[in-house]
Amino acid sequence: MIKIGIAGASGYTGLELIRLLEGHPETELSVLTSETYQGKSIADVFPSLNGIVDIELQALNSEILKSCDVVFLALPHTTGMDLLPELIKSDCKIVDLSADYRLKDAGAYPEWYSLTHTHPELLPQVVYGLPELHREKIKSAQVVANPGCYPTSVILGLAPLMKTDWVDLNSIISDSKSGVSGAGRKPSITTHFCEANEGVNPYGIAGHRHTPEMEQELSNLAGKPINISFSPHLIPMSRGMLSTIYINLKKNLSDDDLIEHYQNFFKDEFFVRTLSKDIFANTHFVSGSNFCDIGVKVDTRVNRLIVTSALDNLVKGASGQAIQNMNIMLGLEEKTGLQSPAIFP
Amino acid sequence: MIKIGIAGASGYTGLELIRLLEGHPETELSVLTSETYQGKSIADVFPSLNGIVDIELQALNSEILKSCDVVFLALPHTTGMDLLPELIKSDCKIVDLSADYRLKDAGAYPEWYSLTHTHPELLPQVVYGLPELHREKIKSAQVVANPGCYPTSVILGLAPLMKTDWVDLNSIISDSKSGVSGAGRKPSITTHFCEANEGVNPYGIAGHRHTPEMEQELSNLAGKPINISFSPHLIPMSRGMLSTIYINLKKNLSDDDLIEHYQNFFKDEFFVRTLSKDIFANTHFVSGSNFCDIGVKVDTRVNRLIVTSALDNLVKGASGQAIQNMNIMLGLEEKTGLQSPAIFP
Amino acid sequence: MIKIGIAGASGYTGLELIRLLEGHPETELSVLTSETYQGKSIADVFPSLNGIVDIELQALNSEILKSCDVVFLALPHTTGMDLLPELIKSDCKIVDLSADYRLKDAGAYPEWYSLTHTHPELLPQVVYGLPELHREKIKSAQVVANPGCYPTSVILGLAPLMKTDWVDLNSIISDSKSGVSGAGRKPSITTHFCEANEGVNPYGIAGHRHTPEMEQELSNLAGKPINISFSPHLIPMSRGMLSTIYINLKKNLSDDDLIEHYQNFFKDEFFVRTLSKDIFANTHFVSGSNFCDIGVKVDTRVNRLIVTSALDNLVKGASGQAIQNMNIMLGLEEKTGLQSPAIFP
Amino acid sequence: MIKIGIAGASGYTGLELIRLLEGHPETELSVLTSETYQGKSIADVFPSLNGIVDIELQALNSEILKSCDVVFLALPHTTGMDLLPELIKSDCKIVDLSADYRLKDAGAYPEWYSLTHTHPELLPQVVYGLPELHREKIKSAQVVANPGCYPTSVILGLAPLMKTDWVDLNSIISDSKSGVSGAGRKPSITTHFCEANEGVNPYGIAGHRHTPEMEQELSNLAGKPINISFSPHLIPMSRGMLSTIYINLKKNLSDDDLIEHYQNFFKDEFFVRTLSKDIFANTHFVSGSNFCDIGVKVDTRVNRLIVTSALDNLVKGASGQAIQNMNIMLGLEEKTGLQSPAIFP
Repeated sequence: MIKIGIAGASGYTGLELIRLLEGHPETELSVLTSETYQGKSIADVFPSLNGIVDIELQALNSEILKSCDVVFLALPHTTGMDLLPELIKSDCKIVDLSADYRLKDAGAYPEWYSLTHTHPELLPQVVYGLPELHREKIKSAQVVANPGCYPTSVILGLAPLMKTDWVDLNSIISDSKSGVSGAGRKPSITTHFCEANEGVNPYGIAGHRHTPEMEQELSNLAGKPINISFSPHLIPMSRGMLSTIYINLKKNLSDDDLIEHYQNFFKDEFFVRTLSKDIFANTHFVSGSNFCDIGVKVDTRVNRLIVTSALDNLVKGASGQAIQNMNIMLGLEEKTGLQSPAIFP
Repeated sequence: MIKIGIAGASGYTGLELIRLLEGHPETELSVLTSETYQGKSIADVFPSLNGIVDIELQALNSEILKSCDVVFLALPHTTGMDLLPELIKSDCKIVDLSADYRLKDAGAYPEWYSLTHTHPELLPQVVYGLPELHREKIKSAQVVANPGCYPTSVILGLAPLMKTDWVDLNSIISDSKSGVSGAGRKPSITTHFCEANEGVNPYGIAGHRHTPEMEQELSNLAGKPINISFSPHLIPMSRGMLSTIYINLKKNLSDDDLIEHYQNFFKDEFFVRTLSKDIFANTHFVSGSNFCDIGVKVDTRVNRLIVTSALDNLVKGASGQAIQNMNIMLGLEEKTGLQSPAIFP
Repeated sequence: MIKIGIAGASGYTGLELIRLLEGHPETELSVLTSETYQGKSIADVFPSLNGIVDIELQALNSEILKSCDVVFLALPHTTGMDLLPELIKSDCKIVDLSADYRLKDAGAYPEWYSLTHTHPELLPQVVYGLPELHREKIKSAQVVANPGCYPTSVILGLAPLMKTDWVDLNSIISDSKSGVSGAGRKPSITTHFCEANEGVNPYGIAGHRHTPEMEQELSNLAGKPINISFSPHLIPMSRGMLSTIYINLKKNLSDDDLIEHYQNFFKDEFFVRTLSKDIFANTHFVSGSNFCDIGVKVDTRVNRLIVTSALDNLVKGASGQAIQNMNIMLGLEEKTGLQSPAIFP
Repeated sequence: MIKIGIAGASGYTGLELIRLLEGHPETELSVLTSETYQGKSIADVFPSLNGIVDIELQALNSEILKSCDVVFLALPHTTGMDLLPELIKSDCKIVDLSADYRLKDAGAYPEWYSLTHTHPELLPQVVYGLPELHREKIKSAQVVANPGCYPTSVILGLAPLMKTDWVDLNSIISDSKSGVSGAGRKPSITTHFCEANEGVNPYGIAGHRHTPEMEQELSNLAGKPINISFSPHLIPMSRGMLSTIYINLKKNLSDDDLIEHYQNFFKDEFFVRTLSKDIFANTHFVSGSNFCDIGVKVDTRVNRLIVTSALDNLVKGASGQAIQNMNIMLGLEEKTGLQSPAIFP
């Protein structure tokens, strides 16, 4: 069995890793860390695990983590930045769910994260873990930077277009809607029930930290620098994310043309489902699963393409994709432990 | 006292008219109609009215409605289309909350509503009841077509720009999010709790019926035909609507420039509030009120303006605006009965 | 105009006082305090007040508050305990929304609140502000202790029975369900959106601090000591409270008998509505209003009475009742500013 | 592989059977029926199944169902009453999720369901499928009547007490709270989003159809007839059920005494988890799973026991328990396909 360590096990992505790995036939949980709850059993923190997992939470410690075959870093941003150089000295494979190593350009960290990267020398060897784009590199990577939830939905929604000459690359807009779990488990006014319930809360418009991550990947695909508008919104639901993406068409294309193109592009991808004509992506049908559903619709009156891209921010947008990356890194069947359909309702 | 009739009193906009008119010092409810619940007291349908309003619901009847000073038509689309010609023979003022008389071009009805308008000869005399744009005409109108909720949020969000040469009029996109009450009270799969809860549901993208209404008013303001992309989404909340509107700038303008312009444009408008720099509109702070809050933000990296426009779909998006129109038509102070702040949380 | 001071204006009950007093024709807001936001305008804290209220928040200061005619203490428990003795030296009337002076027995504070009351000498002169029970005393009181939300729903639901010999006073159980706003605005794990959404969370069973308050009032009515079981639950909604109350009948009584009795008991009470046969209280129809709806049903198979009692925890359960008390204390019409029906949906 | 038929596959319990059986290693879906959607693929009805299940929905037909090894009847009440006599002529095992064969006393159907049972002769051979009580009988049953969601939560919560002499059997009350999915997928006013959201809705108090089912099983356990009070409430969440159960103690017992007794009673039951002292059951931690969590607390001031019992109404309250029954009937390991922890948040 593959021994698993999870640093930051008492957050939502930590719990989701545990939930999913419990259904994975090849892994066993070995080390769980939590600064807040160290000394407690994980089942005391999350009673859903009673009778299923009974592991004591430890303080963060690179030596202990090194004893694992795979380490998931589900830590707040920057917490693991200096831990990684320690971990890579061992043989363990590492999937980092934070943003610490996602951007290839060290110069982007001061601008978007207001910090200087402490280990820019490691950035080249860390693979951006979007399997649908970088599967081959992931296979041989020791460290994968697991994509953000917003970037996963937007990049997958646009990837099939980036190498075509069908679209105006200067016109990209993503209007994205997220459930509240994306903000983590730490209490705040914004995530207080009464402040999130019964309202739509736009935030970070024209300045959200996930923007450079999307632009990095889209630019790589297109072969030239792309800037986009990205507008995230907090929606009163616990899970789920929908990106409604707008891009101008440079030639006349029908819904059928585009659907065929998307289906072809994703034909070998189990976790990306192109929807039928006139069907839009709906977060209900991916919730709890590792799928990303993509709907494609041409607004013929203005010759603009509208892509709807839905995923579960905690699964394909975080922990599920992290396990997908692990499977690839270890040479396991990529779908292992991730085949459950969404839970609905 | 002004005698009020409400046709379609047992729907959500009917109830909201009653709630708001109960706080209006110059009106008294006289006639309430409902096909579904005729013979019952309105307080049996909506127990919130127990001890406050006790009026028996009647079948729809133009003769009885004519006895009122003001009639609100809160009926399903097309139900009141043939009722209006009867009502205007009397002296009563009419505010029609349906879409039946909103479009000036009778030819738009077959395309967008799949029906032939039965009284196109009346369209010219009906005033589109957005007070911030058409106050003078409303003053002398006998019939006002009350705007849709989506159009109110989008038109108010864009109106200050339409006569400028600052923006690319071909680039307008509104990504709008609505609470479920906008779909009315009739049960359906889409509005079933479990199908709307915990999910974001895009619908009617590139084909929603409110599109021509927005284009009519925006084109009139701009002085030339405008087509836009409009993407509505159903959000798991009962009330509230947010439109996130995108438009490309043709010159360099700062947030401050635009905020000043908006504030100036709306300086005499009590119900439209331009928000401070870096504040986005949030449905929480308009819920239950007749306000429309507008936030303005330039995405300088791509020189695109992003407007957030929030209102309560049942108040400024329907019944509150209808009363605002009534006040104007009757020469009352426009704010009468409509000054309550939002209910939060 | 009556000058109003609100200590603790930046919490939910503070905001609700402001919202309701804005519709009160005899009052003007004079002093608002907030430790957290002092120096800011209240409209910056709650943008719903933009264009309506623009008052700078001050630090808590008894001298400034004394300049008001009426002071509402909307402070966390114990914060105002030592403020009250200062305030009562002035002429201002005081409504304390905290629990600090609700219990007549100073000895109950150590047991239920884990503290020693610092001014037990004042307890006798503070009137428990449930108008339906203590209207006469409230008229001449300088200080009123505004009841808790749970106690209001339970005491009103049981009051008509307490002086009868129809019920077994040892059998009282209240199973109560509350929206999350009852827990205040301070973020915590319990009130984090994802922890409250999509779940029912029982808490404080057999030990909640509102228990002695209910028992005090019920015992007074019955003329002998009563102990009850009280089980509160947190429900995923922002506002609203339902108490489902169980009490064994000692004689055979029909629904009609009991409804008639309740209607008679509350016949002069505008804010308490006894529902018709087979109608249960539903929080929807009191939300945003000062009403308490009461449904009565006999479970004939076991001869047990089941009372459903619904109110809005922030209105009749807090700020609305506080204004009702103010009206009585000042000799105003009791309903002034409080007649709006619930907002639904 | 075991061939599975599901009659009524397009409802919520049908979909939940499919979701859970997809994770079951020994079964394959063979026949799915739906009157509403016959001819469509199940994945067109529930897009969550895209890429996972692609089976065409058929009209209800006993001959086709007989070809299966196990048939689940997930039909509206009475729809399957006359189907069962046909099905039992074959060798297939049947789990009926409806109420049609739950009550042993045919005379209870007219009283509680307003109908005359058409096949009372079959009632004796149908086993009430609560595995924790009737495992032995289920092993050899051809037909199991799967318990209702409310009864499962209440019976499990009380079972450990029924054979003791510790409690007053005349004092049982269950105050139960359910998510809206328990009402099924058919749209209605009650389940309309705006009518269920942001409110608590008690219904069926002192008359709900699940009452005789609870009384049947509790009476059997106690060895004498028991009547209880049962009060269901609709809560604004999709899934989950909590029963707060009250019963008077006849002797002095501590929390520890009772917890030990419950833990002992359920010591061999994987799916029933007795919670630690001062922990109440919370629906969050069972949602999506087949667990029933039980909290035990003595209200010492009144010597009353308060049991909190939480489950997922669609899993342990319906489809999960149905699969648990299937596993037992077929001699499989009882937990097969049902070991996933809850999904949280």
